[in-house]
Amino acid sequence: MIVVNVRGAVLVTGTEVLSGATRDRNGPWISQRLGALGVEVEGIHQVGDRPEDLLATLEFLRGRGIDLVVTSGGLGPTADDLTAEVVGRFAGRPLRLDEKMERTIEAILAEFARRFNFDPESLRTANRKQAMVPEGAVPIDPVGTAPGLVVPAGDQVVIVLPGPPRELQGMWENAIAAAPAREMLARAEPYQVLALRLFAVPESELAASLREIGASTDLSALEITTCLRGGELEVDVRYRDGAEDAAAALRAGLVERHGPCVFSETGQSVTDVVVGLLDGRTIAVAESCTSGLLAARLTERPGSSAYFMGGVVTYSNDAKAELLGVPAELIARTGAVSTEVAEAMADGAIERFGADIGVGITGIAGPDGGTQDKPVGYVCISAAVRGERRTRDPVLPGGRADVRERSVTAALHLVRNLLLGEQLPR
Amino acid sequence: MIVVNVRGAVLVTGTEVLSGATRDRNGPWISQRLGALGVEVEGIHQVGDRPEDLLATLEFLRGRGIDLVVTSGGLGPTADDLTAEVVGRFAGRPLRLDEKMERTIEAILAEFARRFNFDPESLRTANRKQAMVPEGAVPIDPVGTAPGLVVPAGDQVVIVLPGPPRELQGMWENAIAAAPAREMLARAEPYQVLALRLFAVPESELAASLREIGASTDLSALEITTCLRGGELEVDVRYRDGAEDAAAALRAGLVERHGPCVFSETGQSVTDVVVGLLDGRTIAVAESCTSGLLAARLTERPGSSAYFMGGVVTYSNDAKAELLGVPAELIARTGAVSTEVAEAMADGAIERFGADIGVGITGIAGPDGGTQDKPVGYVCISAAVRGERRTRDPVLPGGRADVRERSVTAALHLVRNLLLGEQLPR
Repeated sequence: MIVVNVRGAVLVTGTEVLSGATRDRNGPWISQRLGALGVEVEGIHQVGDRPEDLLATLEFLRGRGIDLVVTSGGLGPTADDLTAEVVGRFAGRPLRLDEKMERTIEAILAEFARRFNFDPESLRTANRKQAMVPEGAVPIDPVGTAPGLVVPAGDQVVIVLPGPPRELQGMWENAIAAAPAREMLARAEPYQVLALRLFAVPESELAASLREIGASTDLSALEITTCLRGGELEVDVRYRDGAEDAAAALRAGLVERHGPCVFSETGQSVTDVVVGLLDGRTIAVAESCTSGLLAARLTERPGSSAYFMGGVVTYSNDAKAELLGVPAELIARTGAVSTEVAEAMADGAIERFGADIGVGITGIAGPDGGTQDKPVGYVCISAAVRGERRTRDPVLPGGRADVRERSVTAALHLVRNLLLGEQLPR
Repeated sequence: MIVVNVRGAVLVTGTEVLSGATRDRNGPWISQRLGALGVEVEGIHQVGDRPEDLLATLEFLRGRGIDLVVTSGGLGPTADDLTAEVVGRFAGRPLRLDEKMERTIEAILAEFARRFNFDPESLRTANRKQAMVPEGAVPIDPVGTAPGLVVPAGDQVVIVLPGPPRELQGMWENAIAAAPAREMLARAEPYQVLALRLFAVPESELAASLREIGASTDLSALEITTCLRGGELEVDVRYRDGAEDAAAALRAGLVERHGPCVFSETGQSVTDVVVGLLDGRTIAVAESCTSGLLAARLTERPGSSAYFMGGVVTYSNDAKAELLGVPAELIARTGAVSTEVAEAMADGAIERFGADIGVGITGIAGPDGGTQDKPVGYVCISAAVRGERRTRDPVLPGGRADVRERSVTAALHLVRNLLLGEQLPR
């Protein structure tokens, strides 16, 4: 039984979220942060910017016993931006002009106006309302131009943050450090977290493993969430002090049953695992259907120039021959999508960039181009290091974007495979 | 005043959404589809898989006068998958085994078992519950293994669909065609939509334009949503029959004020606009900091091999020299990040791939590598076609991922710029 002291919920406002135009990033981010602090998150509610919807949802959450609500959005300068006013009304706290905050915003705007050549007067007019603060609330300095608010509301606390993720994330620490939030969060018990990542293990096999382990160890103190994503299985376990043995038994049980298919015991992405395994060696890539996505994935982290030498996207047969030295005769014989061509591309990447490890990917992302023998989703992937190579040619499910994404994931796992010297199933 | 006949809401279940592990794709997708059908969407509510949270939210939505609720998730085979049962309870309809559906699922599972070598018995055991259907509900054939449901619930209709987006999207048309849904949706009046896209126009200037246009034309029959994303401004306008003149006036007013900064009047992405402008010509790219993201963007659509010749990711100076013929002396003189190097990279891409148009991008994505003169976010982008070139070197805001993404967007707009022969501001 996991003790819950603080229940939270996230309220995302903004019609662009409802129209499907924007994918909400704030809800998951805030929810994850609250969870790590030990807050049990009831839900993420995205409503438009209609004051009545926002107010009704706040009242619904109050009725559900939610202690801490975090809102995002609706703090901009336009007439639709009404979150501060609605939250103030909900908390019974009228808005007052915070002159110190008004001056802070003016200084920020003056800088924007100078850098980007905007008309400072129209900006100032539009933004004065952003300095209106509910009485008794704690204002949080802006990262952009909109301040945040930490608003006591009876037994609850409402943290109000701007919509742009970079601003919200930059203001988070100050928001949770503000007295009303800090006092509430002090009641929450942070979770410990175990994050296991598996590849090439179907969900049903994981379910069977969990049942088996649970038969000999009491796992009830663990909150286990599993999610299958792009071929990778994420097993997130949350628990409190006292349940360490159960968590350890779960970890040991899964590693024992699934061995090298467990590619991380700390939630690390396969990319980071691969970078760690490179251990000073360098890598270059040759991509056809994934068209640069593998190169981009390998360089997401800063400092990637230390190990990433470069890549080519060889969409045409000529380019494969010219840039990678893939023999035209080979392509003529096996077609552009074959294990032999993937291997030649990996070797070509090593040659071209003087790298230690090379990866070649050639496949049929779809929706066109499939045949009986080589259907849409058929992808040939090869990873090579001098003297050794691993090659796979799975048929990956899904549409064009899925096949491209899963190919990149599969390629990274193949590199891991190669560097570990392991033979993984399938 | 826009008449609303049908109010809808989306209910996404699944703890992986709350933990931040998965970004919800279903909420925005369903919300957009409902909106296009003329349903006014109150919100997207993501709750965990606790039955009490799901039930409370359904009741909240009933209290808010929501006519049509669409749920996603919780239709899987595990003990946590309780959506069908909860919705049945909410609608006062007990679950019954639908034997025809059970046989349908068994046939699907047999195929999975054969293709992927799973144990068919354990799959069948786990999946029998997926054939339990609330009495009087319309089952929807699965795309994966989980059927959907269209459940009449008093004055409301609840459409229940699986969590995996590909399954949900594949079942959507059948779900809205099922009698209870179809009858309700017949009451809704589909919107007409105007989707304008602008680049290099700040939100405050758009706001000023809207105010000006609104001063001479009554825009109240239009529902206007604006969203600034990665430097692009999305203006989505919804309206019903009778408001065509207002929509036309808005469109004309924005085009008149912002000219070529309006890059689409149909919601087309800049990538698709560029592909259209290529008009038979071919393009190749040379990327440093964007590391393949531009190549990947240009190949998102099927058929891209018709115009995309290929690309290189030249992370090191050697690679820039070797693969693109960028003179080592030039890099030594100006550094790897300069407008001259970007131009040489664009020319190199044209040479290497025999393309008509070349793009070169070199910049500082950060967080390290910035200097006083060339701070983090400083990116040099050049687009060239024989005899003509456009080069820009903005400082882009945000973190590493933002700078990479915005560089790709800026590069695509620069290519548009080049192909149109326009000189756009900044």
